[in-house]
Amino acid sequence: MNSFAFQNPTKIIFGQGTVRQLGKEAAAYGNKALLVYGGGSIKKTGLYDQVLSQLKEHGIEAFELAGIEPNPRLSTVHKGIDICRKNGIGFVLAVGGGSVLDASKAIALGVPYEGDVWDFYEHKATAKDALPLGTVLTLSATGSEMNSASVITNWEQNRKLGYLSVHAFPRFSILDPTLTYTVPKDQTAYGAVDMMTHVFEQYFNHTPDTPLQERLCESILKTIVENAKLAQEKPDDYAARANLMLCGTYALNGGMISVGMDQDWASHDIEHELSAIYDIAHGAGLSIVYPNWMKYVYRERIERFVQFAVRVWDIDPSGKSDEDVALEGIQATRDFFRSLGAPSTLAEVGIGEDRIEEMAAKAVGFGPLGHFKKLEQADVAAIYRLSL
Amino acid sequence: MNSFAFQNPTKIIFGQGTVRQLGKEAAAYGNKALLVYGGGSIKKTGLYDQVLSQLKEHGIEAFELAGIEPNPRLSTVHKGIDICRKNGIGFVLAVGGGSVLDASKAIALGVPYEGDVWDFYEHKATAKDALPLGTVLTLSATGSEMNSASVITNWEQNRKLGYLSVHAFPRFSILDPTLTYTVPKDQTAYGAVDMMTHVFEQYFNHTPDTPLQERLCESILKTIVENAKLAQEKPDDYAARANLMLCGTYALNGGMISVGMDQDWASHDIEHELSAIYDIAHGAGLSIVYPNWMKYVYRERIERFVQFAVRVWDIDPSGKSDEDVALEGIQATRDFFRSLGAPSTLAEVGIGEDRIEEMAAKAVGFGPLGHFKKLEQADVAAIYRLSL
Repeated sequence: MNSFAFQNPTKIIFGQGTVRQLGKEAAAYGNKALLVYGGGSIKKTGLYDQVLSQLKEHGIEAFELAGIEPNPRLSTVHKGIDICRKNGIGFVLAVGGGSVLDASKAIALGVPYEGDVWDFYEHKATAKDALPLGTVLTLSATGSEMNSASVITNWEQNRKLGYLSVHAFPRFSILDPTLTYTVPKDQTAYGAVDMMTHVFEQYFNHTPDTPLQERLCESILKTIVENAKLAQEKPDDYAARANLMLCGTYALNGGMISVGMDQDWASHDIEHELSAIYDIAHGAGLSIVYPNWMKYVYRERIERFVQFAVRVWDIDPSGKSDEDVALEGIQATRDFFRSLGAPSTLAEVGIGEDRIEEMAAKAVGFGPLGHFKKLEQADVAAIYRLSL
Repeated sequence: MNSFAFQNPTKIIFGQGTVRQLGKEAAAYGNKALLVYGGGSIKKTGLYDQVLSQLKEHGIEAFELAGIEPNPRLSTVHKGIDICRKNGIGFVLAVGGGSVLDASKAIALGVPYEGDVWDFYEHKATAKDALPLGTVLTLSATGSEMNSASVITNWEQNRKLGYLSVHAFPRFSILDPTLTYTVPKDQTAYGAVDMMTHVFEQYFNHTPDTPLQERLCESILKTIVENAKLAQEKPDDYAARANLMLCGTYALNGGMISVGMDQDWASHDIEHELSAIYDIAHGAGLSIVYPNWMKYVYRERIERFVQFAVRVWDIDPSGKSDEDVALEGIQATRDFFRSLGAPSTLAEVGIGEDRIEEMAAKAVGFGPLGHFKKLEQADVAAIYRLSL
């Protein structure tokens, strides 16, 4: 086990009807809030009205930034920063899924910073402060509700970059599983894929002597596998939605499940290049890329892939070679993603091979990717090709 | 799954040599610290000198309260409060095991409170504030390093009571597994028993639809079972000590593994009455009581006990009744505790039946115990008798 420091100050408030606690929580952060949301589905479901009435009841004036995109854009973040500055707003309230939350984090980080918030994502500056942020989650996927990470796309540069800052942890996050009842089948699938791959990024490593962390990872993976299809088949299955929501949050909340382990994240970077150009859903991109990353790297520590196959997919190893068991586990992952309706190939989402070298070159722009196996440009291109 | 709120602000700093980060962390909380420790083993190991030099280097004046007892006493807590008040001390630094940490929490809570800090433990008042607290852990057991709980014994009243306050979370805890190399075999056993029973208190419940939480609990239990004997056999086995330390912390850190589940805690209350009169080690008392609590209550939700037997103890259920599998799991727990050298009967620690009714009456002083099965005085007495 490696040495580590861990701290996660976010308060999570979980359960049906917890939106009723929003006003009280928000009131701790002043009397002006920037309400950030996406395409307006929260207006159809009534959540928008509930949120506004909570703010009003607690004497909080609401300013609005609507229309956050699925891969949230720097230009939209800039708009939010402007609104906060012009109106002296001291609190950001994100109501939506991971994209809305990530955009809100970028806004919260950008307001007190003199330069362009993009500097943080390009590793040119370090955030020293942020506006306080609260969230109401409507999609189980990214874990952004209880972590310090955000991913923003600079569309002019076709660059999608992530940034972690201790100042970006939400102060509170309201997690009501019933708010995810309206999430359609495909988004439910992408969410499940996203959270599973978050665990993969932490689970496949070379760190010795981490039996607890490995089991925590496996616990989340098995629970997602059990619940994702239930939620697709019966969208208002409270238990399934609640289990997925908790899995998504725990899968990536500052490393609780993976303290003291190396992490990888090559596949996420490989996917980011895809959605930065083709604007595909992050979960769809991961569904395509991840099993191919697995096939490309599993020999680096085959025992971990054998353990994954046996413990997560209940594959019987008796009489089989490690190689066979590992490959069965990878195939089971592919089959599961496909069974949820998530894509397996770039062809399925209309992406060909023409920009592979360009994406591979950009992906390694800050250096080789990953830890499990260091990936150079040629490796990244090979994984794109495996994904065609 | 029940609705819940969860927040744990404690920063943990884990790994060999992390004591070197103490001064920097402590300096955030002023220039006077009350250093709280136990019987002086930290002087033998050199930790005491290390701590003092860290404080000195960072310009922090150290006042001392030594001699915290294994079941920490209210009278000692009072002494600590007095020292803080007389000297205008604004920070408490606990260096030791759970008892030292718990006493330090009581001191931190008591300093800003006008009445007697015992009021909190008797549920007569609620803490509104506390001095900031930092810890350096030397024993893996109680989880006090990352939770808000403390247990104090009022020796005049023979009462041992616990209290939880959000203000009592340590601001930081330094967890260096090498500091537990000198923990003897019996204390290593009691620590393992203590952390396992913390998980039991959360795991045996009637809450439906909590598959992730159940697996997180089982993950910790299995990892303790794998590592406790290794640490006894080779006290300086870094991996075993590190795994146990992380298990102890995660087993009871404000409910991270058990969010949304009912908890029990009857067995802890039953044990507290034992050590409040006989001053036995908490882990020894739990080792005696817990398997008997299990035998007394398992029929309330036999499926959970079957799951426990199969998943934690790898008991093959094929061809057996649920009753048999459940009982095998309970026996495996008993056998494991015994294999570590922890006691199985009250007779082994010199306790007879003469004060059973008195203890049972005191145990239910605030009402029936537990949630898994509500225990009245007669039930508690029956469990003591099973333990003879």
